[in-house]
Amino acid sequence: MHTLGATLVAVSPGAVEIALVPGPAVSQQHGFVHAGAVSAIADSAAGYAALTLMPPGAGVLTAEFKINLMAPAAGARILARGRVIKAGRTLTLAQAEVFSQGSEGGERLIALLTATLMAVQGREGVGD
Amino acid sequence: MHTLGATLVAVSPGAVEIALVPGPAVSQQHGFVHAGAVSAIADSAAGYAALTLMPPGAGVLTAEFKINLMAPAAGARILARGRVIKAGRTLTLAQAEVFSQGSEGGERLIALLTATLMAVQGREGVGD
Amino acid sequence: MHTLGATLVAVSPGAVEIALVPGPAVSQQHGFVHAGAVSAIADSAAGYAALTLMPPGAGVLTAEFKINLMAPAAGARILARGRVIKAGRTLTLAQAEVFSQGSEGGERLIALLTATLMAVQGREGVGD
Amino acid sequence: MHTLGATLVAVSPGAVEIALVPGPAVSQQHGFVHAGAVSAIADSAAGYAALTLMPPGAGVLTAEFKINLMAPAAGARILARGRVIKAGRTLTLAQAEVFSQGSEGGERLIALLTATLMAVQGREGVGD
Repeated sequence: MHTLGATLVAVSPGAVEIALVPGPAVSQQHGFVHAGAVSAIADSAAGYAALTLMPPGAGVLTAEFKINLMAPAAGARILARGRVIKAGRTLTLAQAEVFSQGSEGGERLIALLTATLMAVQGREGVGD
Repeated sequence: MHTLGATLVAVSPGAVEIALVPGPAVSQQHGFVHAGAVSAIADSAAGYAALTLMPPGAGVLTAEFKINLMAPAAGARILARGRVIKAGRTLTLAQAEVFSQGSEGGERLIALLTATLMAVQGREGVGD
Repeated sequence: MHTLGATLVAVSPGAVEIALVPGPAVSQQHGFVHAGAVSAIADSAAGYAALTLMPPGAGVLTAEFKINLMAPAAGARILARGRVIKAGRTLTLAQAEVFSQGSEGGERLIALLTATLMAVQGREGVGD
Repeated sequence: MHTLGATLVAVSPGAVEIALVPGPAVSQQHGFVHAGAVSAIADSAAGYAALTLMPPGAGVLTAEFKINLMAPAAGARILARGRVIKAGRTLTLAQAEVFSQGSEGGERLIALLTATLMAVQGREGVGD
């Protein structure tokens, strides 16, 4: 997230928001934010949302995700809103909507991600 | 791709390989390559593979992709092999397998991506 | 839909509901509705929702869909609620939530589908 | 599978084939096999392929699947070839390719499915 210049802007049980202010490092040659960066913040928002509902000490791994990219990512800020759809003992389903926000307000849905997250306990390297 | 430190290592009609040598910018706190970086090179390998079969001047947009992450991305090099499954006039289906390669040879499948790519003609900002 | 015993129970612009009363034809050996039948009604609900926003005479094809199955499909009735997330000229993104409903009220989310639908004009065999 | 008229035509460790001879029950109004039936046999081929590598007594549940439908399902026979990509203790990743076969030979890839399957032990209703 640091490499992308993304920041965690809101956290509540089962919901997380991550914002990205587009800069050269995450933009492709025409000024849009690269799809890879959009996917990364969406996946992170879904993953952290899942983590908020897991027991202390648990880590979270993305088992799979799917993203539909509906419009180019432009604008003053890109915001990913993640929320848990269903929390389970082993698997959690979460979704993230990504919006492009203008500098004078207004936002547009540009991507939708669905992710399956796996809770892991006591496995080195994946604690939170 | 530049931000991630990824390089295009092979291109032929319908097939592309992209490699990433893990460094701090793409690694999470425990030394694995971040799932977002794995997804980004996999999506790029699929997208460029699709582009090799499109008419000159066309650009390519990812309409959606799905990735399954089967093992943590560690190793000396991460390699994404993209190939076209079915090239269509409007939509192309491509797949990318991502391998982690050891410093002494040997590789392990760590992720599988399936992507729907859309050919775009004469739309500003999406030419190749 | 006829083979499955499914019926269209609600239609409005951009939203469609399809219900299935479980019977032997769609149940597996233990009495749950087969995942294939759940997917079929979810895909149909998403597809018809997309069709409601397309121009007269257009047909709709599912280019791809993804479904997460969170719980076994049991209950007095299985209901799929489809709605359009983003309608586009060529591609439409729609989602369907599938609920299992008890005989005395109450419902539980059992599946979530996201689909990319393609509008087709004047192609034989895919009109609405 | 019985409702659809599908049959298991080949089974080996990690690979399964399921065939469907199109009839009125699985065809939509224009003679193509319904996408729901294509998905059902593809999901079953992936699921049974996963089951062949699981311990005796285990059952298999589809946690999620994604399918890309590339061409209408017509022809004398529809064949789904499922195979395991990666077998894990908890989750197995499998893929199925679906072909439409002509009455005089020749086949065409019409769909590609990727599924995450979950092994379940001793849970009533999901044994094999």
